[in-house]
Amino acid sequence: RALSGDVAFLLHRVFMRSISVLGSDKQIAKWIPLATQHKIIGSYAQTELGHGTYLQGLETTAVFDTATQEFILNTPKISAMKWWPGDMGRSATHTVVFAQLYIHGKCYGIHPFIVQIRSLQDHSLCPGITAGDIGPKMNFEHIDNGYLLLKNVRIPRENMLSKFCEVRPDGTYVRQGSQKINYFTMTTVRISLISDEVLIPLMKACTIAIRYSVVRRQSKLKPGEQEAKILDYQTQQEKLLPQLAAAYAFYFINDYLQELFNRGYTEIQRKNFDMLPELHALSSGFKAVITQHCTAGVEICLRACGGHGYSLLSGLPSLYTKILASCIYEGENTILLLQTARFLIKCFMAASAGQPAPPSVTYLAAVKHGKCPAKNKLDFLRPDIYTEAYQHVAVRLTSNTAAKLQDLIQSGVKKHDAWNQCTVQLVQAAKAHCHYIAVKNFAETVEKLETKAGVQKIMKHLCDLFALHGIFSNTGAFLHDGYMSAAQMDMVTASYLDLLAVIRKDAVPLVDAFDFTDKSLNSALGSYDGQVYQRLYEWAQRSPTNQMSPAYERYLKPLLHNTLSKL
Amino acid sequence: RALSGDVAFLLHRVFMRSISVLGSDKQIAKWIPLATQHKIIGSYAQTELGHGTYLQGLETTAVFDTATQEFILNTPKISAMKWWPGDMGRSATHTVVFAQLYIHGKCYGIHPFIVQIRSLQDHSLCPGITAGDIGPKMNFEHIDNGYLLLKNVRIPRENMLSKFCEVRPDGTYVRQGSQKINYFTMTTVRISLISDEVLIPLMKACTIAIRYSVVRRQSKLKPGEQEAKILDYQTQQEKLLPQLAAAYAFYFINDYLQELFNRGYTEIQRKNFDMLPELHALSSGFKAVITQHCTAGVEICLRACGGHGYSLLSGLPSLYTKILASCIYEGENTILLLQTARFLIKCFMAASAGQPAPPSVTYLAAVKHGKCPAKNKLDFLRPDIYTEAYQHVAVRLTSNTAAKLQDLIQSGVKKHDAWNQCTVQLVQAAKAHCHYIAVKNFAETVEKLETKAGVQKIMKHLCDLFALHGIFSNTGAFLHDGYMSAAQMDMVTASYLDLLAVIRKDAVPLVDAFDFTDKSLNSALGSYDGQVYQRLYEWAQRSPTNQMSPAYERYLKPLLHNTLSKL
Repeated sequence: RALSGDVAFLLHRVFMRSISVLGSDKQIAKWIPLATQHKIIGSYAQTELGHGTYLQGLETTAVFDTATQEFILNTPKISAMKWWPGDMGRSATHTVVFAQLYIHGKCYGIHPFIVQIRSLQDHSLCPGITAGDIGPKMNFEHIDNGYLLLKNVRIPRENMLSKFCEVRPDGTYVRQGSQKINYFTMTTVRISLISDEVLIPLMKACTIAIRYSVVRRQSKLKPGEQEAKILDYQTQQEKLLPQLAAAYAFYFINDYLQELFNRGYTEIQRKNFDMLPELHALSSGFKAVITQHCTAGVEICLRACGGHGYSLLSGLPSLYTKILASCIYEGENTILLLQTARFLIKCFMAASAGQPAPPSVTYLAAVKHGKCPAKNKLDFLRPDIYTEAYQHVAVRLTSNTAAKLQDLIQSGVKKHDAWNQCTVQLVQAAKAHCHYIAVKNFAETVEKLETKAGVQKIMKHLCDLFALHGIFSNTGAFLHDGYMSAAQMDMVTASYLDLLAVIRKDAVPLVDAFDFTDKSLNSALGSYDGQVYQRLYEWAQRSPTNQMSPAYERYLKPLLHNTLSKL
Repeated sequence: RALSGDVAFLLHRVFMRSISVLGSDKQIAKWIPLATQHKIIGSYAQTELGHGTYLQGLETTAVFDTATQEFILNTPKISAMKWWPGDMGRSATHTVVFAQLYIHGKCYGIHPFIVQIRSLQDHSLCPGITAGDIGPKMNFEHIDNGYLLLKNVRIPRENMLSKFCEVRPDGTYVRQGSQKINYFTMTTVRISLISDEVLIPLMKACTIAIRYSVVRRQSKLKPGEQEAKILDYQTQQEKLLPQLAAAYAFYFINDYLQELFNRGYTEIQRKNFDMLPELHALSSGFKAVITQHCTAGVEICLRACGGHGYSLLSGLPSLYTKILASCIYEGENTILLLQTARFLIKCFMAASAGQPAPPSVTYLAAVKHGKCPAKNKLDFLRPDIYTEAYQHVAVRLTSNTAAKLQDLIQSGVKKHDAWNQCTVQLVQAAKAHCHYIAVKNFAETVEKLETKAGVQKIMKHLCDLFALHGIFSNTGAFLHDGYMSAAQMDMVTASYLDLLAVIRKDAVPLVDAFDFTDKSLNSALGSYDGQVYQRLYEWAQRSPTNQMSPAYERYLKPLLHNTLSKL
């Protein structure tokens, strides 16, 4: 990790988290110290060759044998082979295996089991275990994603994680609380990966690309002058600055989710599962939206650096190939958005029937048919104006899709077919919901900065940019039902393009303060060998007040520091 | 090339093309046979470390020495070092160097010179030459992109490519025709790369991902049934089928550009340069739009295969990292779109003033303020309806941006600043123009298939899908000025979603005819080891009429054949 390479044992943390969340106190007391001291190395074996998102379809079996008080685990066919678990190809000694539990011939659905797969003496595979590496991937060359076949592998009864359900010695099955709790590890993983694996690549990419864009000169903006810094071109600003704004938007959403998670986790510890659906919906939706947005953002940064971005030495290609995986692992994004959509439709129906809804979706109850009240382009720098616009779109997409769904069902289409015929639009509704929450949360965060005027000013620009970029990139959603007029959309465009120039002028002087034009090798190679970054950092250390606003002190410097310390 | 790896010497072709296009008959007679027989290996040294898109800014110098009848080439500073030329790091013996020509102290701008850089005896670097490899990239590991420093390298007067301009022995500079002709090699390269390097990756990716999606089963569509093929999910169809449609759209545009190029080239040979601006505008715009669209399409295909797509063994990651480069090389896409936009604005202004415009842009003269006449969702399957909608948007974006540009200038903003402030919108206009031409050309191609009913039916579906996907993904552009109403947009959405199911049902039975569910290893590993493809191909050979419509005979089979023969 000192090398920022996530060198290994990422899944070890997931292994520990599973036990902490799903294990009994006794199991936690036994396994967590061993794992903490790395006396054992854990993995998390859920996905199978033929089964990814559909957990109920997993085929690995765990049959309880009352005679020996053991579970007997098997891979009944090739498609049931565990496939993809990180750290399992060569490293892990233990893994949490998800398998269908059978007692006296009856299936109780999937449950988690701790299985030792390699010897603690010589690291050889245990009896009945076949395992290895699944081969090369687009990145993560250092992670030994593995496969696992189980043949009559016996583990003691105590190895089924049993905080929420237990098999008694006589084979009695006892459940406490929701079966959904088995998926809770994934919820925690989805939230933690946002900060650990998704935001940092985008932050790094923004830093690299914006730095490059104030060092690189190309073409003349004004005849007769020196070639211009490429960040002075509107098109380059339009590529990069919205990514910077998004990095902050998602940084703040991460805080929001973390806070929500902490509350939910406390409740779950008290066996109150009421917050699970909302937590699942928000963590799923934001995992999808953020990974998608950040992946696209890193690609934009890479391409914005032209050929130099395509060189591995810029650091951008590996950021891209790494972050791309986050769209796929821990829940495929489309599936996750449909989970969020299912929650939205359910809450919308409930809200329409006058029933209470979880806090994040109460707004769905208040369907308004108004128009956007903005009168000039400056009105679109008002958070109340744009937040309400986002809210309106989220409500419209959810309610329209709910109506389509009902119409189809009423016209005789079977429920599952009707659902399938609405999924493209359901995905749109889920994205609109998350986008609304992200804009609202960004605006609220900026408000709370009122005691820090310098910071607030910069953050306000970025918040506005995040909101207006979203409208500008998706004008149809706001124009569709006449909520915004064409004239208002032209105001959005004008405000949005103005903001780019403002942020370029006010908010990028730190990076801009360095002009390497006279040292052309450094200039052009700067993004390659880290020299530019090193110099920038040294400069920031030496002259803390030099052209640096409080906002930079508070935000950009730590971001750079953070980034640089990992380069 | 038998391995589909483009193993080396791609730039050798560009080297030859430069000489063919820019060289005198004498030069062609001297150099082309040597290159054809690989007695020399060529490269193309245009880009410098500090200079990419802005050719006028190149710093390499070529000073004519009347005394020795030689040009003396130099790299005056580090930023003038040639950087990126393919095959130059280790392989090339010769290269075409673009340099600023000086005669008697006067600069005549950039010109192409043939320079030998390595010995034909022992391949050592020639005197005055420093060259090597620029290091690792995101792909193209096998291509030795190189750098080149020149120090007083002398070449004979005859080595300046002189079809269009010449330096006489006494130093007299003679130009024939447009200076723009120097950029003509790039025009030919941009057109040829569409078929050679951009379309094939998208076709391969579509084949792999669609095949995978009819083999992979995940989750249940109907309760109690077997898990469903993922291509039966609307969201999966919405990811993949528009990519298939786009592959055909661009395949046909490639024919269109090729035909235009051939006409233009014939004229240029006759020293008639009238078609150059249109050719430059269309080749630039389509290079940008197609590489962008195909890159996004390959990424969609990769992600649509989940984790298996992320495995290198699927073939998708390398298709992505390869095609991504096409957005950058041979002209950065944003810059190219702005070239197209400049042409559009110029033609629009001319057309508004009643002057004639080149054929592809005559439509700009006919600004209409009508409304879309569609009355029901089936109307949106009429090419006249959707083609006109695309035309309307292209005209609106061009005319609005032209108006903004004029307003800014009239309000006192300097011309170059005004241009910069319009570039984000200019890029939109250029894209809309290309999208319009692509839709129109696809529809016209389909019409010409009228004697082949089976083919026409399938192609019509794909053409409709391409057009409606573009509207559905960019609704704001069509809603903005009320050309389409919200009700019409809902019809577009309905028609678009219907089409996905139709194409799934009618147009993918060939790939679907194979169901490997009972052979689960093959099933899941199918896309990995080529077995599925091999079997599919054998099957297609054995049972040519089995569920295969004439459309497949004509289009899909050759596509698969083509793909398979390269796997």
